[in-house]
Amino acid sequence: MKRISIYGETGSYSEQAALQYFGGGKIGLRYCKFLPEVFESVESESDFGVVPIENSIEGAVTQTYDLLLQSDLSIIGEDIVRISHCLMAQRGVKLANLKFVYSHQQALAQCRDYIERHRLESVPFYDTAGSAKMLAGSRIRDAAAIASARAAKIYGLNVLARDIQSNRHNYTRFLIISKSGDVDNPDKTAITFSAKNKSGSLFTALNAFAHNKVNLLYIQSRPIPGTPWEYNFYIDCDSGIWEKKMRDAVKELCESSDFVKVLGSYKRARFDRHA
Amino acid sequence: MKRISIYGETGSYSEQAALQYFGGGKIGLRYCKFLPEVFESVESESDFGVVPIENSIEGAVTQTYDLLLQSDLSIIGEDIVRISHCLMAQRGVKLANLKFVYSHQQALAQCRDYIERHRLESVPFYDTAGSAKMLAGSRIRDAAAIASARAAKIYGLNVLARDIQSNRHNYTRFLIISKSGDVDNPDKTAITFSAKNKSGSLFTALNAFAHNKVNLLYIQSRPIPGTPWEYNFYIDCDSGIWEKKMRDAVKELCESSDFVKVLGSYKRARFDRHA
Repeated sequence: MKRISIYGETGSYSEQAALQYFGGGKIGLRYCKFLPEVFESVESESDFGVVPIENSIEGAVTQTYDLLLQSDLSIIGEDIVRISHCLMAQRGVKLANLKFVYSHQQALAQCRDYIERHRLESVPFYDTAGSAKMLAGSRIRDAAAIASARAAKIYGLNVLARDIQSNRHNYTRFLIISKSGDVDNPDKTAITFSAKNKSGSLFTALNAFAHNKVNLLYIQSRPIPGTPWEYNFYIDCDSGIWEKKMRDAVKELCESSDFVKVLGSYKRARFDRHA
Repeated sequence: MKRISIYGETGSYSEQAALQYFGGGKIGLRYCKFLPEVFESVESESDFGVVPIENSIEGAVTQTYDLLLQSDLSIIGEDIVRISHCLMAQRGVKLANLKFVYSHQQALAQCRDYIERHRLESVPFYDTAGSAKMLAGSRIRDAAAIASARAAKIYGLNVLARDIQSNRHNYTRFLIISKSGDVDNPDKTAITFSAKNKSGSLFTALNAFAHNKVNLLYIQSRPIPGTPWEYNFYIDCDSGIWEKKMRDAVKELCESSDFVKVLGSYKRARFDRHA
């Protein structure tokens, strides 16, 4: 049995990503309230972890980037989950009774238009499914939670509205992390590096990829705590780490950077926006 | 009198940035609870707005990036404020009485070590100074707020601990925005663009700068809502928009990009990390 640590409660989108990625196999899930807890539990006992890295509307989950840098775990895969947020409340509660809405910060942001239109007050919570669980276990009748339809079913809440996010093309990309980074035939690589702090150094670093014809899919700056206005850069490349052009690019990058770390090389998720 | 809209309440770090930037002049401040409100009020009545763009520990304030893209306002300046978070409570309340701590999401993140060490539960609030104001107007005696020493003084709260952020080198960079973008002798430029969606296009876009010897200080990807896994890129360059090399770079960038927008060209803030 594969032991998998995920971010969030039963019914969370991370759980959905785990079920989707590991499919029919026998799996044991461990639910973590905080992102660092997922990393810790994979380091100590679980075989895999599932963490959100990026949402197609809100952007990077920056804490995941910072944890990947600090940890020795490797990215071994990714999967994409369509986010369909539902508004849910205790049975008998109507939309007109609501004053507050609980959910994860990112979910509240994604449903901002709906929340403002219905003049509800947002209350940030650690997890979407966690807010549904809390509401189900309470006697609160002037608040709703925003979570997946699956969470409503699991916690016995009544769905008042479906697909309430501002943009229907709402997807979250999740990473699968593990102690061992071995993957067969990877075709995508995540790398973090810090450019030497001199004029043009970021460009010199990126040139290592262009020059070897490795295409960049994504680039992100993250601050280095304690040295204001200097950054670690995160990039996703569309090539596997064992391809010659990629090995050459990383070698060149090492020459022009203070530090380079390959976070993982894995198979790119298939993505169908009409799914 | 200059009318200036800022993010947050009296005693907020944005107010500190406004006082620092506009110095001794006669100014009238308008306090906005949400970031979009600052942009709206500068569009309709205020002369200037002051908004956070980046913290040296937590990174980009992504909502500000998205608002800059949507709005017709220009960046006309920047300033940097040292963040020194204090824990404050009602008079007579001791550290041992505390169960909860209220503050802005970013401030809570910056004080994570202190909060965990004292086993307090974090409650996110829209603003640091706002949480101090709320606490001062309440009878809550099992909670503290995290805000500036100035906020404690303004709202009559008792400071229980100073400088509780995990890293003492904690600074936030603020942008000054206005309807007119005219600045004398600017030496820094902020640009957003979307690269054409084909292999190597991000590199081609960045090459426009390298090739013209314009140095990049910062680069950020932000999702384009509705088109998953495509991005707008935000860059800061260390040259003013009227320098020939910068004009040439922007011209080349326009040729290789779907869209280009100069967000502003302004004077770079002096930064002394020992200040």
